[in-house]
Amino acid sequence: MSSFGDHLKVHLLGESHGQLVGVLLEGLPAGVPVDAKAIQAQLERRRPAQSAVTSQRRERDPLTISTGVHEGRTSGAPLLMTTTNTDVDSSVYSALKPRPGHSDLGGHLKFFGHADPRGAGHFGGRLTWGLVAAGALARQALDVFGIRIVAYTERIGAHHITQEPSFDDAVRLVDSNEVRCPDDALAQRMRKDILDARKGGDSLGGAVRCRIQGLPAGLGGYHARSFESRMSLMLFGIPAVKAVGFGLGHELATMTGSQANDPIGLVQGAPQALTNRQGGVVGGLTDGSEVSLLATFKPTASILTPQDTVDLESNAPAKLTIKGRHDPCIVPRAVPVVENAVALVLLDLLLERLGEEGFQRRLLG
Amino acid sequence: MSSFGDHLKVHLLGESHGQLVGVLLEGLPAGVPVDAKAIQAQLERRRPAQSAVTSQRRERDPLTISTGVHEGRTSGAPLLMTTTNTDVDSSVYSALKPRPGHSDLGGHLKFFGHADPRGAGHFGGRLTWGLVAAGALARQALDVFGIRIVAYTERIGAHHITQEPSFDDAVRLVDSNEVRCPDDALAQRMRKDILDARKGGDSLGGAVRCRIQGLPAGLGGYHARSFESRMSLMLFGIPAVKAVGFGLGHELATMTGSQANDPIGLVQGAPQALTNRQGGVVGGLTDGSEVSLLATFKPTASILTPQDTVDLESNAPAKLTIKGRHDPCIVPRAVPVVENAVALVLLDLLLERLGEEGFQRRLLG
Amino acid sequence: MSSFGDHLKVHLLGESHGQLVGVLLEGLPAGVPVDAKAIQAQLERRRPAQSAVTSQRRERDPLTISTGVHEGRTSGAPLLMTTTNTDVDSSVYSALKPRPGHSDLGGHLKFFGHADPRGAGHFGGRLTWGLVAAGALARQALDVFGIRIVAYTERIGAHHITQEPSFDDAVRLVDSNEVRCPDDALAQRMRKDILDARKGGDSLGGAVRCRIQGLPAGLGGYHARSFESRMSLMLFGIPAVKAVGFGLGHELATMTGSQANDPIGLVQGAPQALTNRQGGVVGGLTDGSEVSLLATFKPTASILTPQDTVDLESNAPAKLTIKGRHDPCIVPRAVPVVENAVALVLLDLLLERLGEEGFQRRLLG
Amino acid sequence: MSSFGDHLKVHLLGESHGQLVGVLLEGLPAGVPVDAKAIQAQLERRRPAQSAVTSQRRERDPLTISTGVHEGRTSGAPLLMTTTNTDVDSSVYSALKPRPGHSDLGGHLKFFGHADPRGAGHFGGRLTWGLVAAGALARQALDVFGIRIVAYTERIGAHHITQEPSFDDAVRLVDSNEVRCPDDALAQRMRKDILDARKGGDSLGGAVRCRIQGLPAGLGGYHARSFESRMSLMLFGIPAVKAVGFGLGHELATMTGSQANDPIGLVQGAPQALTNRQGGVVGGLTDGSEVSLLATFKPTASILTPQDTVDLESNAPAKLTIKGRHDPCIVPRAVPVVENAVALVLLDLLLERLGEEGFQRRLLG
Repeated sequence: MSSFGDHLKVHLLGESHGQLVGVLLEGLPAGVPVDAKAIQAQLERRRPAQSAVTSQRRERDPLTISTGVHEGRTSGAPLLMTTTNTDVDSSVYSALKPRPGHSDLGGHLKFFGHADPRGAGHFGGRLTWGLVAAGALARQALDVFGIRIVAYTERIGAHHITQEPSFDDAVRLVDSNEVRCPDDALAQRMRKDILDARKGGDSLGGAVRCRIQGLPAGLGGYHARSFESRMSLMLFGIPAVKAVGFGLGHELATMTGSQANDPIGLVQGAPQALTNRQGGVVGGLTDGSEVSLLATFKPTASILTPQDTVDLESNAPAKLTIKGRHDPCIVPRAVPVVENAVALVLLDLLLERLGEEGFQRRLLG
Repeated sequence: MSSFGDHLKVHLLGESHGQLVGVLLEGLPAGVPVDAKAIQAQLERRRPAQSAVTSQRRERDPLTISTGVHEGRTSGAPLLMTTTNTDVDSSVYSALKPRPGHSDLGGHLKFFGHADPRGAGHFGGRLTWGLVAAGALARQALDVFGIRIVAYTERIGAHHITQEPSFDDAVRLVDSNEVRCPDDALAQRMRKDILDARKGGDSLGGAVRCRIQGLPAGLGGYHARSFESRMSLMLFGIPAVKAVGFGLGHELATMTGSQANDPIGLVQGAPQALTNRQGGVVGGLTDGSEVSLLATFKPTASILTPQDTVDLESNAPAKLTIKGRHDPCIVPRAVPVVENAVALVLLDLLLERLGEEGFQRRLLG
Repeated sequence: MSSFGDHLKVHLLGESHGQLVGVLLEGLPAGVPVDAKAIQAQLERRRPAQSAVTSQRRERDPLTISTGVHEGRTSGAPLLMTTTNTDVDSSVYSALKPRPGHSDLGGHLKFFGHADPRGAGHFGGRLTWGLVAAGALARQALDVFGIRIVAYTERIGAHHITQEPSFDDAVRLVDSNEVRCPDDALAQRMRKDILDARKGGDSLGGAVRCRIQGLPAGLGGYHARSFESRMSLMLFGIPAVKAVGFGLGHELATMTGSQANDPIGLVQGAPQALTNRQGGVVGGLTDGSEVSLLATFKPTASILTPQDTVDLESNAPAKLTIKGRHDPCIVPRAVPVVENAVALVLLDLLLERLGEEGFQRRLLG
Repeated sequence: MSSFGDHLKVHLLGESHGQLVGVLLEGLPAGVPVDAKAIQAQLERRRPAQSAVTSQRRERDPLTISTGVHEGRTSGAPLLMTTTNTDVDSSVYSALKPRPGHSDLGGHLKFFGHADPRGAGHFGGRLTWGLVAAGALARQALDVFGIRIVAYTERIGAHHITQEPSFDDAVRLVDSNEVRCPDDALAQRMRKDILDARKGGDSLGGAVRCRIQGLPAGLGGYHARSFESRMSLMLFGIPAVKAVGFGLGHELATMTGSQANDPIGLVQGAPQALTNRQGGVVGGLTDGSEVSLLATFKPTASILTPQDTVDLESNAPAKLTIKGRHDPCIVPRAVPVVENAVALVLLDLLLERLGEEGFQRRLLG
């Protein structure tokens, strides 16, 4: 299973090297205008072979919506979005030599040797196509509520943003360079390091910052129903994410309470946090201020350098040299994945708060 | 709602300053011998007023099990564990001046002014009593499978472990000092900083490392059903957790693929990761090696220093001076919370893998 | 597990002969005034030893609410209701001779001999205490929406209502006799048959009709999310229910489409079904007209007549003579169980429609 | 949403007159050999235009499996099955004149006028294609456990089986006539009545009996997690089902305890019910004997006779004459729907019992 959501249910489907990848959405409110072009535009941002810093697998990833839309709007029925896989080279995959840093070994044991090993099958990063497609649609529903989301590259390897840009600058600048970092000088250094890593048969990690404006206060819930819990459930479902933090995240460990607490004051007449160290979420609930989170991505596991593994047939140590086309650093393509996938969790939380009727009433004026 | 789990369902209940706190467990396999003393021993580790570095609220926290046990073993029916609140001083709480860093403001807006404000009500850290009680019982089921868990203080403020101890050393040393750091010299520096922070009316943050041995490979699932997703769902349900990482976590952002991948080799004849940078979880699945995770705790939000807030009645800025008894750093008490709560997720995952019959067969020999 | 509900989550707990029985409610909207007396009044209608036609087990069943209420209203936190078991005679139960018509055999095999056999443990009919307590509270939330529910005895053995009473007559007359049949002459014949069955060491079955007014149209969902699906999930969770029908239910099998369809017309200016053969639910959704359903109860399985069974220790055929105090016909006590338990499903469906915010806004004016 | 299942998750998708209908299955164990021909054979039994007593809509309903299969076996990934709609005549549908007996009115109000009205959209009976396809695959997994399922027409209008056939006779005879009643003489009378009803512009109802052999004891759970609850959840998700009973179902209301209880004895050395009045399920659990259930289908709502409705645009009473091609009695085509859909619930329950590992071990020998 690869599903999540309590009110909006998101089900990913497909395999990296199978016929198609896609997503089935259940619980969508009816009446949301479906702008397929806007969805495709987000998919373009995730597409491989979009620049020198990404994988060169050639996929155009055109969107097909087969169900759940009637006269240009969501009908309230399950909505299926898919794209076919066309540039597949499965010859390089073998189930019998698990790749370090991949799900191969665990998947082999979990499914008793019957998992699809080609490009990690349903575990593959290609499955994030569905997160972007679904999230881009969810954003069309969130638009009505004035909810805005932006994600960008905060760190690649040793280079990282030290001063967060304004929300509007982030929106304006994120796509101005190939690595999707709103600081262009920094972006050039990141880009160079990525290309160097690729040249050296190696890869880099990094981190994606995501920020959200316009959320009402009170989204989330108690304990494991907290905003952070439900958001991190999804974020850790994105391949290569190894850490998730809210606000200053792991940096809060070295701060004092008086430094870390956000004082409360009046913002446009309403009580709200005046600073943003906690990331707009305290005690499991949004407080009405900007939400900020950070997802850390490990360096791409598929590297060209030979690695140690085990031949599962002979149960003997073996050398593995990975072929195929891979991203030397996944972060630039992960930016639109995080930005759109986050919308799915937000829509789920908003539906919990407003109900299908409340949501539709507001949507339809 | 404050529930989690797909096969073992965990429902927290109670309020910080209400009659009781507790936990209801559903889906427990039958036949698990219930050792109430061992559960109480874990509760002692979480108890307030256990040392100079904790809150001085006086609660003995005795365990009552009211249902779900028959002739000393779990019966397969829902199991209720509770303890009564005795040392309650609610006079210091007011719903109308939300405390920075707490759920007060969000909770007030979410529940239209009807949330219980006393000690954060059901949002309160006191609710972790149920996580420890339930987790300590879950560990009695995990014991049969040879699954061992240890947690310890990795960081408090500026002080942190630089070399992880062996698993056995961690088990042996964790309770040897008040801050639950297996490096005693480091622990003394942490302790001093905590006492200094308290004296200054301030508080400290930190991080808890948790490690697990004996897990079979293949626990977890696809995408948002990954081991990391389901584990972090629970971890972010622990009050004050602001970041969660697996293996080297956020440090992986600065590494290369060749540094970050764990080579695979043969361990006692079985294929397994030979190093532990990924934390024993890759692609959403355990791989049979030791699992390692890090939960970052922010500094305690309740500090004695006056803070800015808003009076919700008059909707005017106000000063707030928090009273009550609070932990100057929650990390020492959070160690047993993480260590036991983690067991709940593991039992859930193991039930998914083995089913109630497979589990009971193995349990009952 | 014994839970249900998607938005309002209902968790039963306890055992027939254990310390207590109860229910934990999650997802309740905040601000519902809690009238404990009204809940106790519904519990009185379910109580054993209330008349000559019920079991003579003496339980006063007083309600305790331990969590989830603040200043007389629901706080939005999980709400625990319990009552202690006092009149327990467990001497008559043995796990080793399964009683025909009970869960004994299946429960023994499912839980590998560790289930609590006393009075069927958590499977017991006594667990319906929690359904009534929780449902009676749910009705206090439904009241705000003008939603009214009535249940009554439609059939006991050979005697059954041939002409459904008006809704108001049903409300007025249901408690006017011991069997809870609004037709008093019929009730007397039912009563006599029950007493005769008890005298003969035997038992009777019957059926409970439940009707609901004031529901908005559109409650329910597609296919297995239909109103009927979710309602029957709960109804078949009431011990002894063996059939569930909506509207004319199984009688629709012998009708033609022109007889069975309810024509649509204008009722107070709104489109609505003009007759009620379909029971106010078509295609999985309420249509705004009165909902009507029928739950069939089998005759009480515990009869004094000796029965054939197997001694599980020796695995040899054995005779069983059931002792203990049992209802010769469960239907009169099942009436309040159905009437209140139905409210739990309705509140769940209404929360799905309105969301927690929409619900609370309406509730709190 | 139209999903169900706790371990095997079944998600229906598509619309009656949209591009396609289908089903997404999550949680399938890996390694199940997929026999597409056997699935197609079950789909043929459900297909319209298969005989004189069914709708004449011409659909060949060919099966496409797009994901979740690797080298002829399930891979453990979500499995998508679809078929395209080809013979669609949507000209006859209007959202604005709700058809009595259909979801039209409720759906219009629930989705604020945005539901797809053509052939009831996602509410349509055509969605049962997915139940049959998925169920037929599930049976291929159940086969390994020796679990057999048969369904047949028990009643059409006034005609009904009075003596249940043996299981083997039912299997052998069910498809020997167009109405799928194993008693051929009875079947001819049923057939004549259906044709007469069609000629008169009317329709008939009926009931489908379903029986299951080979289930282990202990499947199901407490209260709303009972076998009956979870099975009826699915059954009431089949359009036109208005009542569900287990064993003798609603007839148990008129019996005494001594008549209704099934005595327990030894069957092939194991304790088991010796008769089958309770339908093999007591107290929410299977007891190891044959399971028997009855689903009542109302007469087809789409009849050619003019009916009263309301024009939703003008909000005025209106006459409606339904066109299109409809089944004069849905029961013959409902037989394979029930027979296969039941397998989905059984596989879900079996996965709960055995876990994915236990299931796969058994499956793969």
